Amino acid sequence: MSRRRGEFALISDLFAPLAAGTPASLGLADDAALLPGRTGFETAMTVDAMVAGVHFLPDDPADDIARKLIRVNVSDLAAMGARPVAYLMMVAIPPTIDDAWLESFVAGLAADQKRFGIHLVGGDTVATSGPLVLSVTAVGEVAEGRALRRGGASPGDDIWVSGTIGDGALGLRVLTGDLEGLRPADHDFLVNRYRLPQPRTDLGPELVGQASACIDVSDGLIADLGHICDVSGVAATIEAEAVPLSPAARQAIASDPGLAALPLRGGDDYELLFAAPTGRADGIRRLSEVVGTPLTRIGRIRSGAGVTVVDAHGRAIPDQGAGFTHF
Amino acid sequence: MSRRRGEFALISDLFAPLAAGTPASLGLADDAALLPGRTGFETAMTVDAMVAGVHFLPDDPADDIARKLIRVNVSDLAAMGARPVAYLMMVAIPPTIDDAWLESFVAGLAADQKRFGIHLVGGDTVATSGPLVLSVTAVGEVAEGRALRRGGASPGDDIWVSGTIGDGALGLRVLTGDLEGLRPADHDFLVNRYRLPQPRTDLGPELVGQASACIDVSDGLIADLGHICDVSGVAATIEAEAVPLSPAARQAIASDPGLAALPLRGGDDYELLFAAPTGRADGIRRLSEVVGTPLTRIGRIRSGAGVTVVDAHGRAIPDQGAGFTHF
Repeated sequence: MSRRRGEFALISDLFAPLAAGTPASLGLADDAALLPGRTGFETAMTVDAMVAGVHFLPDDPADDIARKLIRVNVSDLAAMGARPVAYLMMVAIPPTIDDAWLESFVAGLAADQKRFGIHLVGGDTVATSGPLVLSVTAVGEVAEGRALRRGGASPGDDIWVSGTIGDGALGLRVLTGDLEGLRPADHDFLVNRYRLPQPRTDLGPELVGQASACIDVSDGLIADLGHICDVSGVAATIEAEAVPLSPAARQAIASDPGLAALPLRGGDDYELLFAAPTGRADGIRRLSEVVGTPLTRIGRIRSGAGVTVVDAHGRAIPDQGAGFTHF
Repeated sequence: MSRRRGEFALISDLFAPLAAGTPASLGLADDAALLPGRTGFETAMTVDAMVAGVHFLPDDPADDIARKLIRVNVSDLAAMGARPVAYLMMVAIPPTIDDAWLESFVAGLAADQKRFGIHLVGGDTVATSGPLVLSVTAVGEVAEGRALRRGGASPGDDIWVSGTIGDGALGLRVLTGDLEGLRPADHDFLVNRYRLPQPRTDLGPELVGQASACIDVSDGLIADLGHICDVSGVAATIEAEAVPLSPAARQAIASDPGLAALPLRGGDDYELLFAAPTGRADGIRRLSEVVGTPLTRIGRIRSGAGVTVVDAHGRAIPDQGAGFTHF
């Protein structure tokens, strides 16, 4: 009669297989997961939640939602230089969600578990009368005292960013109907970047010992650079022209110049933004080739406070606005 | 104008003070928490969520809701024999929640952090149009290979339970208006047991090396004993008369004999239910005195499958029903 499994069947049928690959999960058949400790290493832990209608669109594909949920979390581990190990998940499910949706959701989790080398080790499934709420606690490992922090940037450091910036925010505009007339390939590229960010889990651990400060871009480039500046007690200048844009993003902005500032403040990029002493620039360029991830120098850390964006002539561009907040 | 702080102010004003007592939190100012690893120890991790209208009543006091959220989670750590260390929290907040509610909620967290010796080390705050969803990931520590599991019970083992059983379920009946006419003291006792369970965090770690299997009673005594039986591959017999009831619960049942079966299947007890070889009974009684927690022998593990409840004459009582599920 019911279109949905009960809680115990949901766990045994759908979630337990996600936990089968690691002894730490105890098969989801105990009161807690048990992860071995290692002297000389730290366990990195982060929690990121997503709500239907806020962090994803209710009709986004369920497997993409699952993968985005994993990705925004392992992105935080990457920003700390930590290697992802495991995750716990909380799902608050409304009555409108059926078995088919959950099966697709679990298929997405399975795909990304494999991709990032992690397993589900614990969780809770609850009912809600409101929108779907998904929360993951991601667990990683990093050598003791070596984690990348937000607070280590010094005046003179270069500012670098991975990949391209702004695609996620533009992809959301495409999905909400606020950005039309793109070529199909550009349309699909931007939507895919919004739905399936590419967390830099290979790059993050390699930046240990190279970057002086690091964060992942989720609130927006300017806002997240502002977080580094606040904690490090420094200022930053970004060269707007240097910020790497995808060909699709360039096309979108060419068709609507009003979108030009969106990449800097849009959010949802999940690229790594980091500072590094200028003497390490060659090493970072080599690292870019080794890891296969584009890394672009976009500015410089200075003494002072706040983030300034300058044009090609070094003139400050006012009113670039603050980061995006869902709240 | 707004009755509520923005996300960043919420974190800096309300949540960051909860993280101030431990270096692991990095002041909630980084992408992840960092907990030191120790060879020879395991990190126990569990997640438990609560939804308004499902796991608590919307007009329950905010500080009690916070404390229950902490308690149901550290109860899972206790059931593994793990010592609580830290927690991460996800809150999905509807527009109806105001600053005063959040301040009371945080006061409850602060009180229970102190009580259980833990700190907030990470979190995420999101908006929802639906009911309040709260999720905690609790982190504990236990010596490697020594955690209490569900799977170690053997035929002949005694079955023990801490504290008293059924108060939480009866307290919920009081709050929903389904149990009336109690003396004020009994009324208040049962309501308090529902709102503020007493997780056995002192007892759990002491049961390491004593108990052969352990679980906390959240789904209901019979259902949770069933989990031990399933995983251990054994059967269990409970003597109904031996199950420890509080004076208030006895009064409630005396006034309405239809409630007699509720303690066995009610749930929300957060007492520890464990098996132990009969030879350890004297040691467990001494432990009860040392820890200051009543421990009562309520039955015996047998070969076979399933849970049987017997009366004072050893006759099986049929239809004790399954555990409570919110789902």
